[in-house]
Amino acid sequence: MKPDEIKKISALFIQALGARKVKTDRDILDKYSRDETSDLAGFPDILVRAESVKDVSETLKICNKHNVPVTPRGSGTGVTGGAVPVNGGVVLSLELLDRIIEIDKKNMVAVVEPGVITSDIQNRALSEGLMYPPDPASLDSCSIGGNVAENAGGPKAVKYGITMDYVTGLEFVLPDGEVIKSGGKILKNSTGYNLIGIILGSEGTLAVITKIYLKLVPAPKVTKDILIPFDSLEEAIDTVCLILNKKIVPAAIEFMEEDAIKLVAKHINSKVQYPGAGAHLLIQIDGMSENSVFDDLEMISEVIKADNEKIIIAESASHRKRLWETRKSIRESICAESPVFLAEDTVVPISEIPEFLIGLKNYLKLKKLRSVMFGHAGDGNVHIDILKDDMNYDEWKKMLPEIKREIYKRAILLGGTITGEHGIGCLRKDYLNMAISMDGIELSKRIKAAFDPKMILNPGKIF
Amino acid sequence: MKPDEIKKISALFIQALGARKVKTDRDILDKYSRDETSDLAGFPDILVRAESVKDVSETLKICNKHNVPVTPRGSGTGVTGGAVPVNGGVVLSLELLDRIIEIDKKNMVAVVEPGVITSDIQNRALSEGLMYPPDPASLDSCSIGGNVAENAGGPKAVKYGITMDYVTGLEFVLPDGEVIKSGGKILKNSTGYNLIGIILGSEGTLAVITKIYLKLVPAPKVTKDILIPFDSLEEAIDTVCLILNKKIVPAAIEFMEEDAIKLVAKHINSKVQYPGAGAHLLIQIDGMSENSVFDDLEMISEVIKADNEKIIIAESASHRKRLWETRKSIRESICAESPVFLAEDTVVPISEIPEFLIGLKNYLKLKKLRSVMFGHAGDGNVHIDILKDDMNYDEWKKMLPEIKREIYKRAILLGGTITGEHGIGCLRKDYLNMAISMDGIELSKRIKAAFDPKMILNPGKIF
Repeated sequence: MKPDEIKKISALFIQALGARKVKTDRDILDKYSRDETSDLAGFPDILVRAESVKDVSETLKICNKHNVPVTPRGSGTGVTGGAVPVNGGVVLSLELLDRIIEIDKKNMVAVVEPGVITSDIQNRALSEGLMYPPDPASLDSCSIGGNVAENAGGPKAVKYGITMDYVTGLEFVLPDGEVIKSGGKILKNSTGYNLIGIILGSEGTLAVITKIYLKLVPAPKVTKDILIPFDSLEEAIDTVCLILNKKIVPAAIEFMEEDAIKLVAKHINSKVQYPGAGAHLLIQIDGMSENSVFDDLEMISEVIKADNEKIIIAESASHRKRLWETRKSIRESICAESPVFLAEDTVVPISEIPEFLIGLKNYLKLKKLRSVMFGHAGDGNVHIDILKDDMNYDEWKKMLPEIKREIYKRAILLGGTITGEHGIGCLRKDYLNMAISMDGIELSKRIKAAFDPKMILNPGKIF
Repeated sequence: MKPDEIKKISALFIQALGARKVKTDRDILDKYSRDETSDLAGFPDILVRAESVKDVSETLKICNKHNVPVTPRGSGTGVTGGAVPVNGGVVLSLELLDRIIEIDKKNMVAVVEPGVITSDIQNRALSEGLMYPPDPASLDSCSIGGNVAENAGGPKAVKYGITMDYVTGLEFVLPDGEVIKSGGKILKNSTGYNLIGIILGSEGTLAVITKIYLKLVPAPKVTKDILIPFDSLEEAIDTVCLILNKKIVPAAIEFMEEDAIKLVAKHINSKVQYPGAGAHLLIQIDGMSENSVFDDLEMISEVIKADNEKIIIAESASHRKRLWETRKSIRESICAESPVFLAEDTVVPISEIPEFLIGLKNYLKLKKLRSVMFGHAGDGNVHIDILKDDMNYDEWKKMLPEIKREIYKRAILLGGTITGEHGIGCLRKDYLNMAISMDGIELSKRIKAAFDPKMILNPGKIF
């Protein structure tokens, strides 16, 4: 935006919302120019911190009227640039819309504003004996509005599903400022189009979410976590298939390959268990009684071909937390090793994980690239982080498209797709046509126009 | 359509698809002029029975080019007229697209065509130790394509959710004949807009579904059904809340009030258990072991205030089937008592069921109308059937709008909505604006135009 335009639009915001909510100071704007995406920034011209749905509506009305791009932002923990204002304009922060409006025990529903941190919802629900299951890795810092916009997943997707499985109602604001409500504290709804469905995972390009109704489930009374070291990744993944074929559905089945374990041992925690293993599986089993969890545990130990003596079972909350530390520190240890890296989160059918990972590992070795693979073995969503290390930056940037294309091609050939949790954002929009046909993309663009005819909302994302 | 137009379009269909798939015989067309909606018919001009996705695409191309209305049809078991060609034109039947393409045990996914009967999928899955949980009352005759189009529910929604929770992939055809694929055998997907989400529950107005990927879950190893008679409906519903507050989630919690039980006893089965009760609850508990099911059963019997000696527990498949017969025969017995009736399936938050039902019953009594209430107490989805009995037909038709409006008003005031499973179809389109704001309806119409700019697909439905 040009300086006089910034001045004009800011004045309109201040008039509509009050000066407190509108910022143009460079040092403040700077904090809103990035999210957690590696190697991506875009500087906003104006920051609006909405404190109510009315603020959101007024902001959008002004932007829509004056054709100003708006980038909605939760807590900025995305990793595909969804909250980065790549075209400048306004960042509309929802961080102050952070009330847990209600935990309705009787109907097992939480009503929350978009800026609430996901783990705060989980903790409040838990204090009532209830659980909000989706658990993205960033759950202690990400906001629920961002989870809905990105359709966030997490380890517990194996048993409990993802964000989309829990949203029973939404209030959202269209780019023209109209406020729309859909659903509520209801578990079934065939009343008109599933507007909630299309907003889920739309990455802030269709509407700004201002209220969310979340289904809660009874919290499991017993949870056990199991760490199993294997000699090789192949053995670990084979075991995942054996467990699932036994018709056991653990809450989570996470894997970490050799390189992930070693990096965590090097940078974060020198006391990592079995640092020399070829792979770890981290399995969570939960249930309503000791009996049912014990049954599952017994069946799992029957199929595991690893050395039974090496299996670690954690039952107390503190021991369980320690067991998860390695898994949760992988991304941080990658950052420490190589601040610039490529983070992919492709999905393949579970049965194709071994072929996908082993083939890809070999390909990357041939390209002399170090990769770290980990993630959700139980649902086919695989994190592949590739390290720049000391490669020349320009060379790295030049090489990326070929590498990304190869990863996506392999995932799609095996019946998968290019992103399972993180979204398209800025990083994958050039590759969307590998996963979705041109007709599908054209249809998506027409849907975009149905919501946002002037194309002001989160431009530069997805398409 | 005019006779010469019928001739011209039929000839185009015959040229594109072959004569076998195209019918204009009146006696055949007659069968496609109704679904299971009470008191509604519309005569088609041409019937096309597609045998492949190519047939669907060619049919739509011709209709789109020549502005001919098309009504897609599964097995015609809907109850809001979704498959009734109220504007004439073409009925595009998917009944011959009836292959179960694959039950993928390793990935726990079924790949099916839209014309497959829902219970056939369930049975095939079960033979592999897997379960497809959604269980609409018509599951032995309804088709899975219709289930997706209407986002069908069923008793097991309490624990297992509804159709939308199981669709991981779709192939669908747009009105212009383009074939689009979205998702597949994958459990997480953040790749572009959630096209599956918006098609789910769109009642055949956005696209014609030609292939469906369904998530399967391990089949429970132990299932028990429990029938509990109560003196009054209030007592029965109170018990539902007590059970849910104990953090027990049965697979199903169905209720039948006095009048439902009596009608079944009168018309279908004179050996109904406890025919004099004020209400029945039918509860299904399932799990992976006798232990876990026993635990739930014990907790439930603790909270039940009914006479424990009267509780019937069925464990064998045949006994369980007998227990469900009454519940499954309610609609049939209503038909026998009064062939013309109003079938509503409003949803309210579970905690509001007693207030909703008792208030409504009193209102209907004042209006001198006989009503039968039953359905899904565990998820707030309540079936309210109102009998015409010997009321004059014109008087009945004249009175209906007021009655419907009153039911919907009460549901919405309590935080619910106007239909949970059956959809808007033809029957509720005049009332959609009670549940959805004008802005929401305008947005929905723009979405419709994004899919179907010439408005040929299932006209006269939803809007």
